[in-house]
Amino acid sequence: MWEPRQMPELAAQLKARGLQMNPEDLSNLAAKPLDAVISLGGCTASFVSPKGLVVTNHHCGYGAIQYNSTPERDLLADGFVAKDFAAELPADPNARIYVTQDIRDVTDQVTGDLAADMDGKARFDAIDARRKALVAECEKPGGLRCNVYNFNGGLRFSLIRQLEIRDVRLVYAPPESIGKFGGDEDNFEWPRHTGDWSFLRAYVGKDGKPAAYSKDNVPYQPKSWLTVSRDDLKAGDYVMVTGYPGSTNRYRLADEVNDAISWEYPMLVDYLKDYLATIDRTTQGDKAAALKYASTIAGLNNAMKLFQGQLDGFAKMDVPVGAKRAREDELKAWLAKRGNDGEGQARAIDALERELAAERATRERDQWFDGAVGGGLAGVAVQLYRNAIEQSKPDAQRESGFQDRDAPRMEGRLKSMDKRYDAKVDKAIMALRLQRYASRVPADQRVPELDAWLGIGANDKTIPGLEAKLNALYAGSKLGDEAARLQWWKADKAAIDASDDAALQFAAKVMPAILRLEDEDEARSGRIQALRPQYMQAMIDFNASQGRPVYPDANSSLRITFGTVRGYSPRDGVEMKPFTTLAGIVAKTTGKEPFISPRAELDAIAQGKGAQYRMEALGDVPVNFLSDVDTTGGNSGSPTLNAKGELVGLLFDGNYESLSADWIFNPALTRSIHVDARYMRWTMDEVDHAERLLEEMGLPHD
Amino acid sequence: MWEPRQMPELAAQLKARGLQMNPEDLSNLAAKPLDAVISLGGCTASFVSPKGLVVTNHHCGYGAIQYNSTPERDLLADGFVAKDFAAELPADPNARIYVTQDIRDVTDQVTGDLAADMDGKARFDAIDARRKALVAECEKPGGLRCNVYNFNGGLRFSLIRQLEIRDVRLVYAPPESIGKFGGDEDNFEWPRHTGDWSFLRAYVGKDGKPAAYSKDNVPYQPKSWLTVSRDDLKAGDYVMVTGYPGSTNRYRLADEVNDAISWEYPMLVDYLKDYLATIDRTTQGDKAAALKYASTIAGLNNAMKLFQGQLDGFAKMDVPVGAKRAREDELKAWLAKRGNDGEGQARAIDALERELAAERATRERDQWFDGAVGGGLAGVAVQLYRNAIEQSKPDAQRESGFQDRDAPRMEGRLKSMDKRYDAKVDKAIMALRLQRYASRVPADQRVPELDAWLGIGANDKTIPGLEAKLNALYAGSKLGDEAARLQWWKADKAAIDASDDAALQFAAKVMPAILRLEDEDEARSGRIQALRPQYMQAMIDFNASQGRPVYPDANSSLRITFGTVRGYSPRDGVEMKPFTTLAGIVAKTTGKEPFISPRAELDAIAQGKGAQYRMEALGDVPVNFLSDVDTTGGNSGSPTLNAKGELVGLLFDGNYESLSADWIFNPALTRSIHVDARYMRWTMDEVDHAERLLEEMGLPHD
Repeated sequence: MWEPRQMPELAAQLKARGLQMNPEDLSNLAAKPLDAVISLGGCTASFVSPKGLVVTNHHCGYGAIQYNSTPERDLLADGFVAKDFAAELPADPNARIYVTQDIRDVTDQVTGDLAADMDGKARFDAIDARRKALVAECEKPGGLRCNVYNFNGGLRFSLIRQLEIRDVRLVYAPPESIGKFGGDEDNFEWPRHTGDWSFLRAYVGKDGKPAAYSKDNVPYQPKSWLTVSRDDLKAGDYVMVTGYPGSTNRYRLADEVNDAISWEYPMLVDYLKDYLATIDRTTQGDKAAALKYASTIAGLNNAMKLFQGQLDGFAKMDVPVGAKRAREDELKAWLAKRGNDGEGQARAIDALERELAAERATRERDQWFDGAVGGGLAGVAVQLYRNAIEQSKPDAQRESGFQDRDAPRMEGRLKSMDKRYDAKVDKAIMALRLQRYASRVPADQRVPELDAWLGIGANDKTIPGLEAKLNALYAGSKLGDEAARLQWWKADKAAIDASDDAALQFAAKVMPAILRLEDEDEARSGRIQALRPQYMQAMIDFNASQGRPVYPDANSSLRITFGTVRGYSPRDGVEMKPFTTLAGIVAKTTGKEPFISPRAELDAIAQGKGAQYRMEALGDVPVNFLSDVDTTGGNSGSPTLNAKGELVGLLFDGNYESLSADWIFNPALTRSIHVDARYMRWTMDEVDHAERLLEEMGLPHD
Repeated sequence: MWEPRQMPELAAQLKARGLQMNPEDLSNLAAKPLDAVISLGGCTASFVSPKGLVVTNHHCGYGAIQYNSTPERDLLADGFVAKDFAAELPADPNARIYVTQDIRDVTDQVTGDLAADMDGKARFDAIDARRKALVAECEKPGGLRCNVYNFNGGLRFSLIRQLEIRDVRLVYAPPESIGKFGGDEDNFEWPRHTGDWSFLRAYVGKDGKPAAYSKDNVPYQPKSWLTVSRDDLKAGDYVMVTGYPGSTNRYRLADEVNDAISWEYPMLVDYLKDYLATIDRTTQGDKAAALKYASTIAGLNNAMKLFQGQLDGFAKMDVPVGAKRAREDELKAWLAKRGNDGEGQARAIDALERELAAERATRERDQWFDGAVGGGLAGVAVQLYRNAIEQSKPDAQRESGFQDRDAPRMEGRLKSMDKRYDAKVDKAIMALRLQRYASRVPADQRVPELDAWLGIGANDKTIPGLEAKLNALYAGSKLGDEAARLQWWKADKAAIDASDDAALQFAAKVMPAILRLEDEDEARSGRIQALRPQYMQAMIDFNASQGRPVYPDANSSLRITFGTVRGYSPRDGVEMKPFTTLAGIVAKTTGKEPFISPRAELDAIAQGKGAQYRMEALGDVPVNFLSDVDTTGGNSGSPTLNAKGELVGLLFDGNYESLSADWIFNPALTRSIHVDARYMRWTMDEVDHAERLLEEMGLPHD
């Protein structure tokens, strides 16, 4: 996950893997291919025509497809192909396309002059204020989204300026039976047969500037767009993925890895099981409630597979914590030989380990108190109350999330809550969280404000009368109604303090604790912000001394990863092949969810249509493929490029073995999963009849 | 699964696959390699030294290992290597080694002069009597076991004469953690890492003739023994397996396949689930009872996997019944063009289909009445009562299973029943069977004698007071005691009729029905025996007209199957490799059953011991391998031979996809699983220190 600026120093590796471009061209943000790679906020996409046509994953375009679906016209089920520009459908008003325009190092402005011995809270506040000021200044011209990204734990900061396109339209999506074939069952699995693509288009005002949806808007004309490859990609070929990976933990200390393996993930898997069982129990016989929680359940199952997958991955490794610790010991031994410089860094690492140990000491409280006040009805009450507190301050001094620029997203969340909320279910989840709090948080970590509300002492492990208390809370609150939420969102603190809404009263009761713990947390963060960069600098220097360049952990900024199309052996005697085929779709199709295929697709396969999309070595059209590039969440929808920088597919998932790669990358087992552009073209040509788009991309069709 | 006599006509295919021997040599029963291939009764084995050393599977030698194990000296857990001849341990007195001496066609004697229009029962009885007479005549000299085998549904009969060696000794077995590594979890699975071998030795009297165990007996000197290969077997190489496959259904009619898929296997899977749940429920908290049923549970689970595996296999095929029917339609169309000959065969096929339909019409009764009177306490009572009836007849006229030659096996079963019987559990299983009988068998098929005993009418679907009835049955019987069983085994019918043992009284009550239904069944069998050979002859002629030789369904007689070492693709994107490795054992070892490996083995692997056993292309010692040879139950322990007829491994299992191959052979997916002789030699040399045996087989060691 290299930064574009690092590509020239990797020239030898790139050439060895087969790159046929000048590596310099991969560090130029203002030219093809990088400036065609865009962000949807959480997903990646790319321009593929001069008229602002955008390709991304089906699961990244899902919101736009769902937004335009009705029981009468179910685009998820049936798919959608706009027959012309006028037929392209506006996505959810919150949909965005971000086009990166500039990346600027702002380390000096953020931390350049901060004293090494500065108090933790003061450091945290200073960094926070400077970042906000940089963002505000940057966004001033309008139509832009700016963010300050933290690299290597605060060693460097970059200000990234992106054009914020607000008129996003749905152009084409295959039916879910192609775009989501295999569903959750195949999630993180190989072999895979998913047609995970959709097409959007960026629209702007007639002046070429970002604007809210208007039918008079015109297609955006990007400076560059990707060329779709017409070459035969095969096993062993060079590929690269450019995109916006969210976050990784590759440089965490052994203690942190150990905490994840021995405490955090097992705790989360255990909690999510109970969470799911609670939803299951309370939605029995209530179809409306069950529907409201369908996407929550999918999300929880996905998270559980992710946590369990990481644990399974760690279990497959020889002593993952030990390996981390051994590397740290090597680092410390190397530092010990470096005199004063090394001594300072070694001291910083020791101090960092102590701060992290102190943070872990209250992990039960942080987990379960945050849980109790952070979700459902209680969570929205706390958010509204906090909002009233923050709104009384000048914009620049407000907490992140409560600034004016955050308002549209908060409004969206307050409005959409109804779709995922049922009081009876939420109450049971709240009970689960509070019981976890009481039973797991030791007496010396308990939060007196919450204990008082619960009517228990710090040593009590159970909560007598909890049910009655929660009944009163839910019966006494109107925050389950959208109108009430929006009304309180505009109210000031005095009004909320005077309210008799039981949930808002709960929020007022626990708010002092939330603010106090936040202050403590920020003070620790400030101290860690002074230490972690020193550890990272030491690690970079140590690697440099061994001739190894270091890429920073993923942080949602633009990255490039390169590698090779190849399968893997998950265990002795089994080989995962790098390509799947149309024949494999037929074999996997059971006619039952999630393995239903459209009749038109099965017919096209049976008739052997689309010979031009066939791969020689496979004797069939390739559907999905594997590569050893390094990706993570946020990379979804990223273009997969060949040695010439042409689009050969879209990254959409990783294999099960890749889940633990967020912590420790195992090159033998970690694989990214891509949908092959030939399958996309075959489907557009032979099944969905999106010839108009093939032509727009300059591609032939039958 | 070719008969040895067919090998010369397959010369071209054999050469094409890579055979380096004269195909004629593979049809000679009196010479190497065939005369070194022996039967253990249910398993296959082979001589591997001039001193009667026998190699077979660990699971085939299991009885001998278990028989010699005590809590103090647990040979299953620890393994066993006899340091010299004197240390070799006598197996269970019922253990046998059968050395085939002669195969003779006896079709003329069995059916040669039977009239085509003979009554069914008369035909059945005539064939039965002639077979018994041939066997009795053949066994007269003593020390021999003879059997008449039915080929192609009665088209041909062969009399096979085998030397019956009765002094069998255990020479070497690896610990279960090698010999049964992966246990039931890996049963029918690939990749596999099982060291499934054991060594026995055949002993005979000083006169060279079979004799019961005596310490004065001497090792048997076989005419031939197999040479263990020292060549490097690799993917694509020719292999063949010679052995005694039990039974297959490859030439069943489409109606019969359909019955198995749509009724029999689903019914059995459903029944076995309830059977297992019944055992589970009734052994809760009773460790002694749980132990008694451990092997029953293993057997039921194995059977359930086998039935479910066949169903899964059928589900993977395109219209398995349709394909069978299409082939039958082709046959019928071909017969229609053949004039009188064809017309007669076509009529026979129609008649056969009608007989089979009539048989299916009472399938519920046959299944559940047989179940109710065929197992547990009731079953042993019925068997004892029947025995008394049969003992009153001359030996030649008795039912099979009740002749003098069958007495030792029956005595063994009566004695060993205690180890697998608990009255409380057996009673619950009996209740399950009787409930199935009452609820599933339609009124017009009901058995009045059983209904009367149950106190219900033919239309009753439930059995009021069943529990009290069964309590009385079990409380009123002594057949749970070995002494009582053995006493009644020697009693005559009058004595049993006069007995007040409730189980014997039950047997007396239902015996008329058993005999009546048996008569009906034998009459139908007689009619089918007249028809099925005609169908088989037609199928053979039809195949011959297309240049395809036909092998008969497996029938426990000696067969040869040949093919190639190769993996397979179970589904799109996945490739099963043909070899597994020592590294794979390490990776699979979890330290928990069934994936425990001996410390000595893990150490030997870690130290890279035994370089001479490594396979070049693998860079490791091969453990198990796959081939596309055609095997089934009974083939276990069969020698796997290379192109030169040298031993390269032992057949021990098939993959999951092979289960349905008993009905329909799918060459793309059906694979046999072998233990590689190099792993066997490596273990003997580096782990178990059986150098004495390596030397006896003329093999080098470190």
